[in-house]
Amino acid sequence: MLKNIDLTREIAKPEYKRLKSEADLKLAALQRQSKTLGIPIIVVFEGWSASGKGTMINQMILPLDPRGFNVYSSRDPTNEDAFYPFLRRFWNRTPTRGRLAIFDRSWNRRVVADRVRGLVTGKQLQQAFDDIRSFERQLCDEGVVIVKCFLHISKSEQKRRFDALRKNPATAWRVTKEDLWQHRRYSEYLRAAEEMLTETDADYAPWTVVEAHDRRFATLKIFGTVINALERAVAKAEQKIEAPAPRPYEPIAAENIFKTTALEHVDLSKSVTPDDYAARLKKAQTALRELEHEIYLRRVPVVIAYEGWDAAGKGGNIRRLTQNLDPRGYEVVSVAAPNDIEKAHHYLWRFWAQMPKAGHITIFDRTWYGRVLVERVEGFCTETQWRRAYREINGMEQHLVHFGAVVLKFWLHIDPEEQLRRFREREGMPHKQWKITEEDWRNREKIEQYREAVEEMLHRTSTPFAPWTIVESNCKRYARVKVLETVCQALRKRVG
Amino acid sequence: MLKNIDLTREIAKPEYKRLKSEADLKLAALQRQSKTLGIPIIVVFEGWSASGKGTMINQMILPLDPRGFNVYSSRDPTNEDAFYPFLRRFWNRTPTRGRLAIFDRSWNRRVVADRVRGLVTGKQLQQAFDDIRSFERQLCDEGVVIVKCFLHISKSEQKRRFDALRKNPATAWRVTKEDLWQHRRYSEYLRAAEEMLTETDADYAPWTVVEAHDRRFATLKIFGTVINALERAVAKAEQKIEAPAPRPYEPIAAENIFKTTALEHVDLSKSVTPDDYAARLKKAQTALRELEHEIYLRRVPVVIAYEGWDAAGKGGNIRRLTQNLDPRGYEVVSVAAPNDIEKAHHYLWRFWAQMPKAGHITIFDRTWYGRVLVERVEGFCTETQWRRAYREINGMEQHLVHFGAVVLKFWLHIDPEEQLRRFREREGMPHKQWKITEEDWRNREKIEQYREAVEEMLHRTSTPFAPWTIVESNCKRYARVKVLETVCQALRKRVG
Repeated sequence: MLKNIDLTREIAKPEYKRLKSEADLKLAALQRQSKTLGIPIIVVFEGWSASGKGTMINQMILPLDPRGFNVYSSRDPTNEDAFYPFLRRFWNRTPTRGRLAIFDRSWNRRVVADRVRGLVTGKQLQQAFDDIRSFERQLCDEGVVIVKCFLHISKSEQKRRFDALRKNPATAWRVTKEDLWQHRRYSEYLRAAEEMLTETDADYAPWTVVEAHDRRFATLKIFGTVINALERAVAKAEQKIEAPAPRPYEPIAAENIFKTTALEHVDLSKSVTPDDYAARLKKAQTALRELEHEIYLRRVPVVIAYEGWDAAGKGGNIRRLTQNLDPRGYEVVSVAAPNDIEKAHHYLWRFWAQMPKAGHITIFDRTWYGRVLVERVEGFCTETQWRRAYREINGMEQHLVHFGAVVLKFWLHIDPEEQLRRFREREGMPHKQWKITEEDWRNREKIEQYREAVEEMLHRTSTPFAPWTIVESNCKRYARVKVLETVCQALRKRVG
Repeated sequence: MLKNIDLTREIAKPEYKRLKSEADLKLAALQRQSKTLGIPIIVVFEGWSASGKGTMINQMILPLDPRGFNVYSSRDPTNEDAFYPFLRRFWNRTPTRGRLAIFDRSWNRRVVADRVRGLVTGKQLQQAFDDIRSFERQLCDEGVVIVKCFLHISKSEQKRRFDALRKNPATAWRVTKEDLWQHRRYSEYLRAAEEMLTETDADYAPWTVVEAHDRRFATLKIFGTVINALERAVAKAEQKIEAPAPRPYEPIAAENIFKTTALEHVDLSKSVTPDDYAARLKKAQTALRELEHEIYLRRVPVVIAYEGWDAAGKGGNIRRLTQNLDPRGYEVVSVAAPNDIEKAHHYLWRFWAQMPKAGHITIFDRTWYGRVLVERVEGFCTETQWRRAYREINGMEQHLVHFGAVVLKFWLHIDPEEQLRRFREREGMPHKQWKITEEDWRNREKIEQYREAVEEMLHRTSTPFAPWTIVESNCKRYARVKVLETVCQALRKRVG
């Protein structure tokens, strides 16, 4: 969930001031409502040293009624804590009805910091994930609202902040040895954080990754996240029924400017010259043919999933991928709307039936991600269902990986202008007219909703075991070569 | 969940005939209703070889419309299956809406047979439990009803059945080499089955252990279980709201005769003579004092939980347990109804705060099991809440054990006559009158509901890591010695 994160997001000061003062009022009002309704709330701050957790917490408590919250700073466990199971001190601090508990770092330390330091290994780590999931689920089942924020900064940004702190004698003490240790092991921490986010992201207690380079941006994103979670909880408590479609807090959330994006800054100008293309295509196709043989011998199953905008070029891309392969070793599955029999089953059922056997490659032209794309946008499933689907899909892909599969997922990305150009071109050429339908035009009208769904999908289902690759596809040649080379690289890594 | 199971349960033929023909009609009607409402149903049969799974399945399908179900016999995976993740072939066989899928053995083979045979080990086993839980939860979330029956027979009964089959040339072939292999490793299988039951028992897909020595008994118990599950599902589908309080299928379920019992045949005549008592008490108390020191040195936390009928003698029992201990090493926590602050928290919160630190012993006089006893019977929590509590409590105890704790749970059992005698005695003795209240008499009136709750608690929360010990307490001396000796034995085992 940290891959592809755009950390350059920022917001200007006047805009910030306006939005912040509105958000302050809103948050204070929600705190009072939660108190009246007896809703207990937990807000967890995790993230890098110097990512600004303290500042954020200060911002957050300013508008609140100080009688209604507690802030818990959980650094290293005390000597006393070490005599108890690690969750005990957090159980002790769970809020009573109507109160808010804010955690500066939390139980997740066990699966990140303690893990990187080698204090928690192997079976203990799996047990800790189990324990944490069970803990959060139990609280949510009893009505606790859990908001989890992970403040993300890059290694170089962390260095910049440490340097600034150390230059000033008044703040130098704030950079501890442990902080510097973390900085040196940034990539190890990153892997651990990524796994923590994947293992403990859930519909009942989702993670929000906060791009924390710009403090104004981070503050507003956190406010928006907390406000939205509380609005849902208040609506649910007032109506005693399933939460209705979210009523996002307009000033911040509706504009979507704080949503995590992987697509905003994709460089769609990337391209390959025809000559380069021919050479690289041939080289990669030859390599892939050999790798196909290799994975057959080693009985490795390979799943390749294609998703992307209409007219992004999936068909042509798949054709180049398979052009030189032995047809006995792969299969292309084209996924359309489910038929009546498929509709009578769990939505994942039809995909299970088509997964590759060991040693074979299955290429999906559109996939199970329809659940969180078209089904979400068109209302073919409920909000509860698509929110749950992220975890279900991650579960399915994890099961495949447990079995030894390689799972690769490609999002073929083009911009709206390029899409329009291709639609028009298709209409103008008789032999391509079949490729463009009324539905394509209709989808285009909902482009903003689709984009929101795509962003959330790329975010919540990019896992260490099955990552998404975003493929810049305005230049079809570039896209074809990138997919082929990515597949080759992944298979080469797998066969060692 | 297999510990303390009473396998002698049986039912007479005339009674069986009457109940069975009623149940046939009921099941057929429910199948039709499920079809109309589009409810998909899975019934899983697991259990020992020769426990009668085949017979049971035959019994079950006879009254059904043959167009509405499939029976899947899942022996060893085929060569073809081995090329896929193990859940795939079960995904392929999940029923469509309105259909019933019956599995003769299932995905659980991976965590029992495959495990005992050493094909699945360590991390793979944990992954398999994760995968199974995720699979069942996903299906239930989408409305599939899952009924899971484990047919239990003793090792000697299995031998008797194998011998009978082998004596007859017409049936000798049915006893395979694999069956005999299982028989020789009965205790290993038992441990694996126990862990499977614990790890995959859930409110959304609970296990039913079927005492399978008497086939009539087993048949009716299975019918009752399936009928009840379907009645709940039909009621829920018809009302589109949370399932109401269960309407148990009267002829079979209401009489409770098919409920699993650990208490029915407890031998309450067990006793110890005063002389023996004095000697054994002293010996155990001395040993426990030494063990207290030992666990302190090794930093082992110990949790001892007391539950039992009113007037079963918990107080006196605890006094004997602690009489000779170093008071710095233990604490007795007496649990009453929660106060206002505790009520404002999750029900487990107050117990977390009282768990022992490493090296110490905490003795609970009444416990977190109040959730599934008094709170269930008196309606202080909803059915959804107490059903979920089994898993929550197992989760808490598992977290303690992950941390290295020893968790021991004692149910002090007396019969209603002995309880009455003690109540009367208390009333008659001025210095004991404080011990008997109006509430005790009121509880006594609900003895049947309490008994049902106790039985289910003993069944669903007896886990390999935190087993229940039933203490025959009509003779208080016997009870005291049994607890002391059990604690000594467990601690001795722990410190090696």
